[in-house]
Amino acid sequence: MQVKSGYTGDMLGRTYDNQVCSAARALEVVGERWSLLIIRDALFAGSTRFNDWLRLGIATNILKSRLDGLVEVGIMEHGAASRNPDHYEYLLTEKGRDLAPVIITLTEWGDRWSAPAGSPILYVHSVCGGSITQQTTCANCGRVHDPAELTVRPGPGMPPDIAARMDGNPRGEAQMRSTH
Amino acid sequence: MQVKSGYTGDMLGRTYDNQVCSAARALEVVGERWSLLIIRDALFAGSTRFNDWLRLGIATNILKSRLDGLVEVGIMEHGAASRNPDHYEYLLTEKGRDLAPVIITLTEWGDRWSAPAGSPILYVHSVCGGSITQQTTCANCGRVHDPAELTVRPGPGMPPDIAARMDGNPRGEAQMRSTH
Repeated sequence: MQVKSGYTGDMLGRTYDNQVCSAARALEVVGERWSLLIIRDALFAGSTRFNDWLRLGIATNILKSRLDGLVEVGIMEHGAASRNPDHYEYLLTEKGRDLAPVIITLTEWGDRWSAPAGSPILYVHSVCGGSITQQTTCANCGRVHDPAELTVRPGPGMPPDIAARMDGNPRGEAQMRSTH
Repeated sequence: MQVKSGYTGDMLGRTYDNQVCSAARALEVVGERWSLLIIRDALFAGSTRFNDWLRLGIATNILKSRLDGLVEVGIMEHGAASRNPDHYEYLLTEKGRDLAPVIITLTEWGDRWSAPAGSPILYVHSVCGGSITQQTTCANCGRVHDPAELTVRPGPGMPPDIAARMDGNPRGEAQMRSTH
């Protein structure tokens, strides 16, 4: 089963193209090395110009490739200061800013499992100063703490033949293995 | 500024080692191609044996390397059926299951920006059947919808010299550029 993503850039490209899965689509766009850290610094460290990201320790040719790729897929756009290519400004679009929850969940996992000295960074709500967290939430009964309580079923974007096979199996698992 | 992650496996390894950031630490462990999709299928498609993941379309040598790497960093462990190496069983640990929110936020982003036919997969709470979402939540005032309202400040795990520089700057931004 193959669904084209429409993305033909030079990042992860079609690596996951036989996956009918929005997580795979997202990883095709932002899963290349450095991409999420570039977006992180645009979101939370005020980085807008090429030189701002060099502090990541990334090679200039790779940084150029990543920034151009992020513009190509609509995660960044050139700002008003970009008329002179020497001063290209890269600004997050709505699509790019919408990756904040991904970065926060990655941070929370890293805090729990790879930060023996404690969280290096805390996310804060600038409006009221409250602590920000990502919560796995059930629309019916509230917060869900146990990943074992999560399951999947086909959504409207699943090709009907695969969805029918998934629905035919009460647990949906055997079929999911070959399609999800 | 350099903080060692302690991780010396063969995945992203020390690519981001000069980053004082839990998101970077997380990406070092799970940011390599295929890793998150392998974990996704372990979480939501019941994959436990080597052959289960071959349906991803991943080369066997890469799959072997990824699974071994996930065991090495404690995201997976060998199950009871693993006494015969030909039937190695790979089971998620708590550390691995704790990546569910990362996969869900990636899915939600992909649903919004890369799924013109609609969500291929819906996450469901197996206990009550409710829809599952990841919500960016402020401990003080509830759900936060606007990423522009998110900011960062140094946490207990930030080296004091960097934290002091961040605190000295009301917006924390210029310093963050070189450290975060």
